[in-house]
This record gives sequence, structure tokens and C-alpha cells, in this order.
Amino acid sequence: MIGEMLQGLDYFGTAVFAVTGALMADRKRMDMMGFLILATVTAIGGGTIRDLLLDRPVFWLTQWEYLVIAAVTAIVTFYVSKPFHQRANWLPWADAVGLAAFCVIGTQIALSMDANPMIAVMMGIMTAAFGGLIRDVLAGEPPLLLHREIYASAALVGGIVYVLFAHWLDWSIAAVILGFLVTLAVRGLGIRYHWHLPSADR
Amino acid sequence: MIGEMLQGLDYFGTAVFAVTGALMADRKRMDMMGFLILATVTAIGGGTIRDLLLDRPVFWLTQWEYLVIAAVTAIVTFYVSKPFHQRANWLPWADAVGLAAFCVIGTQIALSMDANPMIAVMMGIMTAAFGGLIRDVLAGEPPLLLHREIYASAALVGGIVYVLFAHWLDWSIAAVILGFLVTLAVRGLGIRYHWHLPSADR
Amino acid sequence: MIGEMLQGLDYFGTAVFAVTGALMADRKRMDMMGFLILATVTAIGGGTIRDLLLDRPVFWLTQWEYLVIAAVTAIVTFYVSKPFHQRANWLPWADAVGLAAFCVIGTQIALSMDANPMIAVMMGIMTAAFGGLIRDVLAGEPPLLLHREIYASAALVGGIVYVLFAHWLDWSIAAVILGFLVTLAVRGLGIRYHWHLPSADR
Repeated sequence: MIGEMLQGLDYFGTAVFAVTGALMADRKRMDMMGFLILATVTAIGGGTIRDLLLDRPVFWLTQWEYLVIAAVTAIVTFYVSKPFHQRANWLPWADAVGLAAFCVIGTQIALSMDANPMIAVMMGIMTAAFGGLIRDVLAGEPPLLLHREIYASAALVGGIVYVLFAHWLDWSIAAVILGFLVTLAVRGLGIRYHWHLPSADR
Repeated sequence: MIGEMLQGLDYFGTAVFAVTGALMADRKRMDMMGFLILATVTAIGGGTIRDLLLDRPVFWLTQWEYLVIAAVTAIVTFYVSKPFHQRANWLPWADAVGLAAFCVIGTQIALSMDANPMIAVMMGIMTAAFGGLIRDVLAGEPPLLLHREIYASAALVGGIVYVLFAHWLDWSIAAVILGFLVTLAVRGLGIRYHWHLPSADR
Repeated sequence: MIGEMLQGLDYFGTAVFAVTGALMADRKRMDMMGFLILATVTAIGGGTIRDLLLDRPVFWLTQWEYLVIAAVTAIVTFYVSKPFHQRANWLPWADAVGLAAFCVIGTQIALSMDANPMIAVMMGIMTAAFGGLIRDVLAGEPPLLLHREIYASAALVGGIVYVLFAHWLDWSIAAVILGFLVTLAVRGLGIRYHWHLPSADR
């Protein structure tokens, strides 16, 4: 039940991340292939890097519904990018849901492969945030992830909560629910109140 | 026989892609190591990503003649880049041959590892086009692949033709020949008639 | 004994590369997460790519002290970046020590996995230099590695020396010491006398 909800949120996150990739392609005046490639890389890039690092089969080789979701989303966004722009104020919130889902899933997968807790938290962050990092690099933009935004930090906090419950308290349902909600809440507060991490003092 | 021709075209494609990397290094005023690295990454980058994703041994670890071809090409281009520039109108056509050969080989390898048809087509596109993508990113250029060019799309069409014949009709010789020729033709028509994919309507 | 010294130099190199990543984050006005991510990627990126290509377990999954070194270095640099800037003239020299250590270790690991000598030298270069390459790409800077600097070339020469002694003369202690010293010397001379590789003649 929790597993199925998480699965649904994972699909949702895939579509949302694909939208952010496609909108970037739109901003950069790319063509349809640019939309497809940038949307797909944004949606599956983080999980792909996680799987390569953990030496497990890349998830979308068998679960290719993720590719279909990303491709369909890219095509839809290509033809209807105007409404996406007009209503873009919901987009960061949808992105936050994807961030939270991907973070929990990445941490969970790493723990299930007996990664140590620190590695597991890292894998959650990478799953959630490195797709967007690749998107920004391919588009020639300064990576959002590295600049003044509560983004990876939300995944960091949520991942720690997940590991705390799943690894040390051995309470996996609470880990999924709380890991997800805490990531979402931290990111949501960041969006709502324009929270930033400080830059270095000079 | 067909296998040997494809092998030859693969070597040719490796050299051509290395030339495009080296010419980019030249444009960016890089030094000899820049030529070597950019040429090599362009020539073997796509196949490397394919092999990592499919979890098979990276091809140039054992078939290191590819490294030699890329390195020699880089050095030659370093010393004789002027003629390459003067005669650069043949370069997109040579590049198209490389694109077609790499596409067929990438699709073939993926199918031989029992990847599903959609994945196989993706692997063909990545083998053919992601070396150039890395080249552009390292050089700080907007990736050609993502912009208004029939490039990855040619590999997409050729890959579908390959899969159609090899996977569904089980006729592998036709698959190689037609996959190659269709990729070459689509890309060639794109070059000749300046075909572009549309950007999103705004 | 030699092994322990090399291990110590490896830790030192990890910290120094993390400093260069953190200083880049500082220059680009990134936040704390930017410092952490860029420092870590610079410090462990080269070795990670090496391990993925050689299909061996990524080293920091088990030896996570490397992550701790990178993270602590990033945080320290975040709070005390001023002195790093003021005394930055020692930094290229410290970086040269890291380059030499990483080069020897990368070459050694590749040879221990029966890679052929050319591949082993490549792996040394990648271990030593690709972390910095990723740093520059993420920061949107022209990669230092590809431009007019004796950098990868120092690792190339040192790697050849290493392979010469370890693979052909079977004298591994001399290989470590000479591979390290030659890389350091070539890079050091490059820094001291502003040696550059030539760009292509135009």
C-alpha cells in the first residue's frame, strides 16, 4: 500500500522532472529531439547515476515505463508549453513532490544493497537532484543545485530521517512516510519563504 | 563480409568523430592534450556510455585499436588542421557515415544483450550521438544534438529500421544494410536540404 | 611502508582537490551545498570514473573516509576561504602532489586488473585529472585540463614511467616512487616556468 503510493509518486516525479527538462529545452529553443533527450535525461539521470555507482542494473532497462512517461511528457510539453509557462507557479511544488519521492526511493535502494547510512543518504540526494544537474549542464545554465536554493539540502534532511527510521529504528513504513514528508516540507518551506543557504562570507 | 564492412565503417566513424573533436579543440585554442582528450572522448564516448548502461565491458578496454585511431587522428589534425578547415564541406558527410555505422553497431549490441527494441534504438542513438554531446559540453558549446538539426533523429529512424529487420523479421543482413543506409540517407537529406526539426511553437 | 606513504599522499590529494572544488564554488558564489558537492565531485570524480570504466566497485562505497575528507575540507574552506585565497600561491603545488599521487594510484589499480599498459596510463590520467574536469564543467568554466597547461601531460609522463617500472621491469617500489616524483617534477616545472603545450599552428 505504502509501496504502491510511493510507486505512484515516483511516476509522478518522473513526469514532473521531464516537464522541467522540456521547459528548459523550450527556453533554449531546442527542437523536438532536444525536448525528448533533455526531458528524459532530467527524469532518469539521477537514478541512472545511482544505479551505475551501486553496480546494479540500470532501472529503466527493465522498467521502461519510465522512458515512456518521460517521452510522452516531453511531447505533450512540446505542443502545449504555453499553458505550462502560464501556470508555472505550480511547477516548483510539483517538482518538490518528485524530489521527495526520488529521495526516498534512492535512499531505500541504497540501504537495500547494504550501503552504509552515509552512502545511502548520498544516493538519495543524487537520485533526486542529479537529473536536474545534468539538465542544467546540457543547457549551459549554472546548475540550480549548486546555487542559493534549498534543494539538495531538503533531500539531505529527508534522507537522514529515512535512514534514521529504516536503518536504526527498523521501522520502514515510518521511514518512507516521514522521509517523504520531511523532504517535501523542507523544500516547500524553502520555496514559500524564499529560504536560501548562505554563500561563503567574503 | 557484412560484418567486416561494418567493422571498417566503425573504424572510419571513429576517425571522423575524432576529427570533429580535434577541430573543436582547435576552435577553442586548446593544446595538444586538449586535442587528444577531446578527440578521444568524441570518438569513444557514445559507445562507452552504452557499455556502462548495458553493464558490459567497455569496448576499448580490449579493443584498444579504437584509442589508437582516435589518438593518431587527433595528432594528425593538430598538425594539419588548416586543410581540414579548407575542405570542411566534406566533413558533415563523413560524419554522417560515422553516425550511421555507430547507430547500427549500438543497436546491434543492445539487441544481442536481449535489450527490448525501444532500449536498443536508444542505445543506437546514444552510441552515435553522445560522443558529440560530451564534446560540445566540454567545449562549452550548445550541444548540436539538442538544437535544430536532423541528427539524433536520423539515428532514431535508422535504429527503428534495424530493429524491425533484425528483431521482428530476423533478417540480420538486411538490418545492417538498411539500418545503415536509412540513417545515412536521412542525415544526408538533412544536410543537403538544411532540414530541421521544428522548435516548439510560441 | 611505501604503500602507507602513498595512502597518506592519496588522502592529502583528496583534501587538496576538495579545496580546489570549494574555491571554485566560492568564486561562483555557490551556497554550502554547492561547496560540498563541487568539492566532493572534484576529489572523488576521477577515481569514480576509473572504477566505473574498469568495472570494479567504486572505491568510496567502502572506503568512505574519502567522502569524509572531502566534506570536512569543503566545510572548512567555506568558513575560512579568505586565507585560502590570500595564500593561494601554495595551492598549485599542493595540487601537483595530489595529481602525482592520484596518477600513480590510478595506474597501479588498472595494472592490478590486468589492463594493458596504454589503458593503465589512461586510467592514471583520468584518476588524476577528470575530477577537475567535472569541476570546471559544473562551474561553467573552460576546462583547465584542455587548455594551455602542463597538467594531464605530467600525469601522462609519470604514468609511462610507472608502467615502465611496474609492468616491464617488475620493480614496483621504484615504479611508485619514480612515477610519483616524475609526475610531480613535470607538473612542478610547468608551474615554475609557466610551461605550456603549444596550441595548433594557424
